Amino acid sequence: MLLGKGLLGIEDLERSEIELILETAQRMTEIGTRDVKKVPTLRGRTLINLFFEPSTRTQTSFEIAGKRLAADVVNFSASSSSLSKKESILDTAKTLDAMDPDCVVIRHKVAGVPKRIADVLNAPVINAGDGAHEHPTQALLDMLTVFQQKDRLDGLTVAIIGDIAHSRVARSNIYGFSKMGAEVRVAGPPTMLPPAIEVLGVKAYTSLREVLDGADVVMALRIQNERLEGACFPSVREYAATFGIDRAKLRYAKDDAIVMHPGPVNRGVELSHDLADHRPSVILDQVRNGVALRMALLYLVVGRPQTLRAQE
Amino acid sequence: MLLGKGLLGIEDLERSEIELILETAQRMTEIGTRDVKKVPTLRGRTLINLFFEPSTRTQTSFEIAGKRLAADVVNFSASSSSLSKKESILDTAKTLDAMDPDCVVIRHKVAGVPKRIADVLNAPVINAGDGAHEHPTQALLDMLTVFQQKDRLDGLTVAIIGDIAHSRVARSNIYGFSKMGAEVRVAGPPTMLPPAIEVLGVKAYTSLREVLDGADVVMALRIQNERLEGACFPSVREYAATFGIDRAKLRYAKDDAIVMHPGPVNRGVELSHDLADHRPSVILDQVRNGVALRMALLYLVVGRPQTLRAQE
Amino acid sequence: MLLGKGLLGIEDLERSEIELILETAQRMTEIGTRDVKKVPTLRGRTLINLFFEPSTRTQTSFEIAGKRLAADVVNFSASSSSLSKKESILDTAKTLDAMDPDCVVIRHKVAGVPKRIADVLNAPVINAGDGAHEHPTQALLDMLTVFQQKDRLDGLTVAIIGDIAHSRVARSNIYGFSKMGAEVRVAGPPTMLPPAIEVLGVKAYTSLREVLDGADVVMALRIQNERLEGACFPSVREYAATFGIDRAKLRYAKDDAIVMHPGPVNRGVELSHDLADHRPSVILDQVRNGVALRMALLYLVVGRPQTLRAQE
Repeated sequence: MLLGKGLLGIEDLERSEIELILETAQRMTEIGTRDVKKVPTLRGRTLINLFFEPSTRTQTSFEIAGKRLAADVVNFSASSSSLSKKESILDTAKTLDAMDPDCVVIRHKVAGVPKRIADVLNAPVINAGDGAHEHPTQALLDMLTVFQQKDRLDGLTVAIIGDIAHSRVARSNIYGFSKMGAEVRVAGPPTMLPPAIEVLGVKAYTSLREVLDGADVVMALRIQNERLEGACFPSVREYAATFGIDRAKLRYAKDDAIVMHPGPVNRGVELSHDLADHRPSVILDQVRNGVALRMALLYLVVGRPQTLRAQE
Repeated sequence: MLLGKGLLGIEDLERSEIELILETAQRMTEIGTRDVKKVPTLRGRTLINLFFEPSTRTQTSFEIAGKRLAADVVNFSASSSSLSKKESILDTAKTLDAMDPDCVVIRHKVAGVPKRIADVLNAPVINAGDGAHEHPTQALLDMLTVFQQKDRLDGLTVAIIGDIAHSRVARSNIYGFSKMGAEVRVAGPPTMLPPAIEVLGVKAYTSLREVLDGADVVMALRIQNERLEGACFPSVREYAATFGIDRAKLRYAKDDAIVMHPGPVNRGVELSHDLADHRPSVILDQVRNGVALRMALLYLVVGRPQTLRAQE
Repeated sequence: MLLGKGLLGIEDLERSEIELILETAQRMTEIGTRDVKKVPTLRGRTLINLFFEPSTRTQTSFEIAGKRLAADVVNFSASSSSLSKKESILDTAKTLDAMDPDCVVIRHKVAGVPKRIADVLNAPVINAGDGAHEHPTQALLDMLTVFQQKDRLDGLTVAIIGDIAHSRVARSNIYGFSKMGAEVRVAGPPTMLPPAIEVLGVKAYTSLREVLDGADVVMALRIQNERLEGACFPSVREYAATFGIDRAKLRYAKDDAIVMHPGPVNRGVELSHDLADHRPSVILDQVRNGVALRMALLYLVVGRPQTLRAQE
């Protein structure tokens, strides 16, 4: 599935594929601890980062992942392109594809664009986040981080808190953790919970106390302040009081619960300052695992299995 | 001529030099089909992309070309630079030159800027497009693409259609195809035909039917919509009706005529949607050949002949 | 001190450390003269350029320096980042740090930011200019350039002319040349001389003739025109007449005095057109030495001594 195909969403993956990605990523984490953090696995392969939406973490993470595998990484940000000449997104993508990249990583603010592009490209496409649809590499790095802390995913209880309706991170994690046998719950203000969310197999709560009860993993999502100031919710202060996590509220969860956040954190809103920076939050582990996870995915999508083995 | 000198325009080249570039590029096309698309030819050489005007295709194409030859590629876009401090273009270029690059690729919206810069730099300069003057690598990749389709350039009839007066692509292709023995014709609305165009050895037409009659190659140029909305021409719709190419109008040309466009295409204006995407148009071949052509040029400008031979 | 620590300012360095950096840089200058300008010293190391303020020379210089040592260089400019989502500077830096870079180069318009960031990162930090505080690599490349011309620093007289109060280049050079045994003098309009400048061990002048008398090195600083048009000084023309250097005024200095400028030069303001381009000015030497100096610094901060030796 992955090799030569890319990855558009967690929804498309089998459990065995998720396991393969996580196992490969776990082996990749070791490379980041070396002095020479580079393997020749993807030497001579070209990775294009095609970001129509700016991003700190994700683009840099893919760039570093590609370079650690010795690939050539070409960043293509939409603003500096002939898109200002109103070239269509598909034409831009097909033009880049004609330069024979081995993989194209795409972020776009409209759900479904990576799929539309993947349908017409020769190169495999990895979705780096599309609208409110999916952000599969974020969910995979989240699963890797939980696995490192808990030694399993099966049977865990994962509580996702925030703007579930507009979050690609939430959707991908719901698919991923559910496939791996975890129980996923979501909570947020009523206006941020999609009406039919239970179709995805999750239970929805409007009380923080209830959603956290018995949770092994507490995942806070980033709130778009713009949205809070609109119709969705009365105020940032009220959101923080009701759904913001601090050490006191964390006691509703299991004693050994971990706290996650895809970043960047609005300190004092989704998480207290204290929790944003200290255990049991694992936010920087998530970032670090992001590089290893993307190395694994690039390797599985672009590389040939024998190549890695030869390097070991 | 090329080695250590660079390339400012097709006007400066001898036919034998064009042949050398095209033959070298043809050999480079094979590298793009490999799994490991990289040769160590320019290892340790530094290429600076100095783009004062944004560009999708050309900058990325040079970047990928440089990396496939193992060069270090440094992108320098004018907007993020101290040009905002009103540093002069020449001072910027001389500063970069003092960092000992092996080649500087320059695009600027004013005709003649690459030549002015080349006059004061130690590093060889490649013109990646200057105003309405020349875009030599575009013409070379166009010639390579035609050669692949027709096995010759000598004796062909090439019809270039569009805003001839303001097109650097047209100028470079007129020089190039003429030097290689092809007959070049141009056509466009009267306001888009420069008065003295026949000095360049081409015949000018205002009828699409006449210019296409007997043509082996139909090259449509990109129309700047801004320009159409000004004084030059009544409307986009009228341009499309008169000079836009679709399958019906293509019958005026030879049965085996190919259709080219430097991209990005305004679909439904210069070319019908159908022709933009399907044979006999060779638009994505042009893009693909762009990488091979620029590899060849960088190799001829920067590298030493024995280096490539040693790698083979 | 340097290895694993980084460099925040010249103020923190011992004379012996400056000597080590300059000696190492002098050896690195030789690499820039080779055809293959690349050594494998930092292969597999990751350098992040984190520039919150745009810069032509410094960022490109660090990028080329890193690549010549075979490091992977990742450029991260603040504008294209999630800083637009109001992520804090410290959170951005910690996120990048979690991707395990081996060195982070930081420029910020506020004095002290690199230090604040360095306090919370695992990776060593190199200050590439912070507000009006320090620009240590500029001072080091200036010292290297003077050493190449004069064969010594000890006992020289260095005159720095311009907006001393707001110049990080001035501060770093005052620290550096003073530590190396040179006599440093400064001059500028009264509004551009900080009141307590003599605390730094330099003598302040308001007459160009006096400051140049006996000078071996004449260093003109860049004037921010914006500032001149404010309260600080009557006019650009008056500044040029009083403190601009041309060949006539240069006669106040020693016969063999050299002229320096950190660039970009406002021609006809700080320096005459003639002096901006010709000896005894050494402005392009400064740029060229910038690459070698940054290679040396990266090597001393990131590399292990045995690595370089093994390559020689």
